Amino acid sequence: MLYSKLFGKTKKNSKQYDSINATLLIKGGFIDQVMAGTYTYLTLGLRVINKIEQIIREEMDTIGQEILMPALTPIVNWQHTGRFETVDVLMKTTPANIFAKAKNDTEYVLSPTHEEVVTPLAQKFILSYKDFPFALYQIQNKFRNEPRVKSGLLRGREFRMKDLYSFHTSEEDFKKYYEKSKEVYMQVFNRLGIGKDTVITLASGGSFTDDYSHEFQTICETGEDTIFYDKKTNTYYNKEVAPNQAPEIKYQDEKILPKKDVLGKGIIGVEELAKFLKIPVEKTTKTLIYETDKKEVVVAAVRGGYDINENKLRKVVGCKALKLTSPEIVKKVTGAEIGYAGLLNLPKNIKVFIDESVGNRHNFETGANKTHYHSINVNFGRDLPKPKKFYDIKVAKEGDSNPKTKEKYQVYRASEVGNIFPLYTKFTEAFNYHFVDQDGKEKPIYMGCYGIGSSRIMGIIIEKHHDNHGIIWPESVAPFQVHLIGLDMKDKNISSKVHQVYQVLKEKNIEVLFDDREEVSAGEKFADADLIGISVRLVVSIRTKEKVEYKRRGENKTSLMELKEVISNVKSQISNLHRKT
Amino acid sequence: MLYSKLFGKTKKNSKQYDSINATLLIKGGFIDQVMAGTYTYLTLGLRVINKIEQIIREEMDTIGQEILMPALTPIVNWQHTGRFETVDVLMKTTPANIFAKAKNDTEYVLSPTHEEVVTPLAQKFILSYKDFPFALYQIQNKFRNEPRVKSGLLRGREFRMKDLYSFHTSEEDFKKYYEKSKEVYMQVFNRLGIGKDTVITLASGGSFTDDYSHEFQTICETGEDTIFYDKKTNTYYNKEVAPNQAPEIKYQDEKILPKKDVLGKGIIGVEELAKFLKIPVEKTTKTLIYETDKKEVVVAAVRGGYDINENKLRKVVGCKALKLTSPEIVKKVTGAEIGYAGLLNLPKNIKVFIDESVGNRHNFETGANKTHYHSINVNFGRDLPKPKKFYDIKVAKEGDSNPKTKEKYQVYRASEVGNIFPLYTKFTEAFNYHFVDQDGKEKPIYMGCYGIGSSRIMGIIIEKHHDNHGIIWPESVAPFQVHLIGLDMKDKNISSKVHQVYQVLKEKNIEVLFDDREEVSAGEKFADADLIGISVRLVVSIRTKEKVEYKRRGENKTSLMELKEVISNVKSQISNLHRKT
Repeated sequence: MLYSKLFGKTKKNSKQYDSINATLLIKGGFIDQVMAGTYTYLTLGLRVINKIEQIIREEMDTIGQEILMPALTPIVNWQHTGRFETVDVLMKTTPANIFAKAKNDTEYVLSPTHEEVVTPLAQKFILSYKDFPFALYQIQNKFRNEPRVKSGLLRGREFRMKDLYSFHTSEEDFKKYYEKSKEVYMQVFNRLGIGKDTVITLASGGSFTDDYSHEFQTICETGEDTIFYDKKTNTYYNKEVAPNQAPEIKYQDEKILPKKDVLGKGIIGVEELAKFLKIPVEKTTKTLIYETDKKEVVVAAVRGGYDINENKLRKVVGCKALKLTSPEIVKKVTGAEIGYAGLLNLPKNIKVFIDESVGNRHNFETGANKTHYHSINVNFGRDLPKPKKFYDIKVAKEGDSNPKTKEKYQVYRASEVGNIFPLYTKFTEAFNYHFVDQDGKEKPIYMGCYGIGSSRIMGIIIEKHHDNHGIIWPESVAPFQVHLIGLDMKDKNISSKVHQVYQVLKEKNIEVLFDDREEVSAGEKFADADLIGISVRLVVSIRTKEKVEYKRRGENKTSLMELKEVISNVKSQISNLHRKT
Repeated sequence: MLYSKLFGKTKKNSKQYDSINATLLIKGGFIDQVMAGTYTYLTLGLRVINKIEQIIREEMDTIGQEILMPALTPIVNWQHTGRFETVDVLMKTTPANIFAKAKNDTEYVLSPTHEEVVTPLAQKFILSYKDFPFALYQIQNKFRNEPRVKSGLLRGREFRMKDLYSFHTSEEDFKKYYEKSKEVYMQVFNRLGIGKDTVITLASGGSFTDDYSHEFQTICETGEDTIFYDKKTNTYYNKEVAPNQAPEIKYQDEKILPKKDVLGKGIIGVEELAKFLKIPVEKTTKTLIYETDKKEVVVAAVRGGYDINENKLRKVVGCKALKLTSPEIVKKVTGAEIGYAGLLNLPKNIKVFIDESVGNRHNFETGANKTHYHSINVNFGRDLPKPKKFYDIKVAKEGDSNPKTKEKYQVYRASEVGNIFPLYTKFTEAFNYHFVDQDGKEKPIYMGCYGIGSSRIMGIIIEKHHDNHGIIWPESVAPFQVHLIGLDMKDKNISSKVHQVYQVLKEKNIEVLFDDREEVSAGEKFADADLIGISVRLVVSIRTKEKVEYKRRGENKTSLMELKEVISNVKSQISNLHRKT
């Protein structure tokens, strides 16, 4: 393609966006922001996303069949699974004006995911044990009512995604497939050039199972997730599920002091409180009162400096959902206004869950359960009974260890590039979808879902692969295989030579972006090539004489080569990009 | 692909839908209806739509650059062009529930077309005369709030479409491109196997121009459009714009009779009235009172049996929009309740537009402009002055002629497969998008838009190409190139032989659907092959011995061939499908 004819050239005065990928993609002419969270893929960007999706497709074809479901889906399907009223990223469509309303006033869901479509679809076709297992996938635009969209392609309201759904007649068969999917996913990330930094991370399996789901996290300085690595077991955990033990506190008093209630009106946050009481934060205690889906009230406490992990708390409480309770109930339980809740003198009938980080401290602080008062120098065994059991109900942070292995976690920033999720029978039961087994009996169907955000990956690749000059695409997804620059183009001989090189490369089925502009300086052309980030840069100029200058993006070395040699180099690189079978 | 493993096999007891394409596509396992107007493309269907779109893409690449715009777009862009409040197929998105509303309450347009995105996009990048002309296209899902969705893939609420937009610095340059686009479109339809039945038809250019737009109409018995062909000028007109002259009336009275007012209370429709008055319908007159966008009231009349063509009326009146006026104004103008309006004794200041079909009649009927009364035996020159000019303001129908050429139209049913539309400066002016010319001055930008509904075409291909047994795909879009049937599969030798044939074909890069089912009868396999409609059917069985049975879908003849010969046949067919350069 001739760069002079390309729509969407590099933008000199493009601004800095909130992420590297947005800044470089917009400046490089790959995408255009239509509004916060929606983008147009320009010609260069579309070529990249197509290559990413083709790699995903080739790998998914080994474990599933491609279909294409609509984005507009009936509300009733979402009511069936209870998600219409609860999913907070769900959008629906409605007529835009009175004329549209007069014509058709029905509303539809604009799908953020497709369990509600694929499950009834499978049900229409496949009921006999003979046809299991099977898996269906699609690559398609998804819609999410995100409150804050940010980080360019990393979090959008409309984005590209591959979603795959598998169906099985037994849990064992499902699990076998689930393990296989991990291998296929890693193969995708390898081919996309992010495999060596991508790790499988345990994450929450959702409210209907104690099992983990699995995230594929690419370790990346600018990542928005935090993951915890236990070297002993070679296991990565997402922050939301990492089991953790707090480090011992630094300044342990040797002498047990008399308990005291201190007036501290309006002093509520642990940082502020520690300052006020002149004690380390780690001696404070955070006590919160929750209400479960069964309306049971429970008390949870963690050491100051930690947050309560509601996912962990939900599991130890044994409920499906919980939320912070109302100020009225806090008062009823503690006898105090909100902000002064603590562990002392709680009603006997209330269940109390105390994190392990709260124990092993002398002379600690806890809310006095008296409005405006905080108790200090509190000690288990003297001021309140030592609980029979301490729990792990806090969010992990740097410095924590795995309570089982005692190994101190290595902590990384990372970006999620895919996830796989055991759904078990949640959706098949919701649609009453069973199979008929050999014995003629109806039995439950096990299901998994498997996502990869292809546009998100395009952003993450850039977060990983760039330098001060621009993008450094992995060869497998670069918009073209070669960036050919003609210099001294006003010289007819040179111009004719470089056009000839362009023709030869095209005839060899090499994808070439040819910067054929006459009026642009060499410096500008080199800067554009660095920004666009195609793996191989070729230059033809008066200086290169009968040869061609060859340089790889990200390396400084240039070499003069015969065109033949260039072609053979590029061809051998291309052949490495094909699917390994 | 092994048919035994395919998700979405043929359905024996599938019902008849409202169209041939829906019936055959659903029965054949190509698509599944999610709800009225939205479909899932199953594996077979997705392969077809991909092939259709790849052909479109290859041809569009010769005149434009592919990009991909989002479906979610900002409302403000649509307010800019005045289409947010007026387009009756426009949908917007809104949060689906209270949790979603709490997170982000913004609404967005779900785009049915992309002028409101592509125009500001072009404006961001291209302002200098040097970069014109250029054209951008995309292939993408579109959303329309259709009141009645029907005819399978022909009219959906979510559908696949290619839309291209071109930008020019002069009207001449735009027109040159517009003509070129017609050739490219015809090339697309030729490659899709519907070229020889597809004609370019004049259609309305919209309210902002007197120019025509152009529709590509595929002549087809089940088509929902009517087109009018004037053989003399070799021109096709869409019903909405066909200039037309009514045939002379059959029973012309020779004797002029005395005018009479007849009481006919509540008799309003022309059919009912003709019966009541015992006169042919063609002697009645339909008189309607309109109001223009400038609030001017005008009277329009056509011969009974015709409808007023508001598009034509708007043009002769010289207004931008018009609608039927209120009963109050009808009464003010005619002195009568609605239903009795006629041409007699109208106020002098009201403009009256009489269609030519009203003239050349003796003793005709018209409303008496007196409630409950109809005047009969009315004659121009005696009861009312003969108008200086008769107009053409009626919808064409079978039997009409072209008033200019006097040629009687040939009338066809047809289905629209594409349209191209001169937009001139309508959208560029709305966004204040101008270019800077060589002389440094800002000048207007001319624009065209060019659509092809790819999913719609998939439906129309079937409406054209099927028989009682199923679909007959053109080779270029068939889901596979070969449908291989193994019979006597329980015989190990045969089974091994047919699997070997399958392997050889695949190695030769031939796309094969292999019906490898053991438990299914020969009859059922043949019926499925006919339903699915792949161009080449191969059979391997005990009877075929060392050869392979070859049959083309839609032909009865079968031949026994060497596999080598089959491969060379198929290969030569495939090579004919490539783009002609």
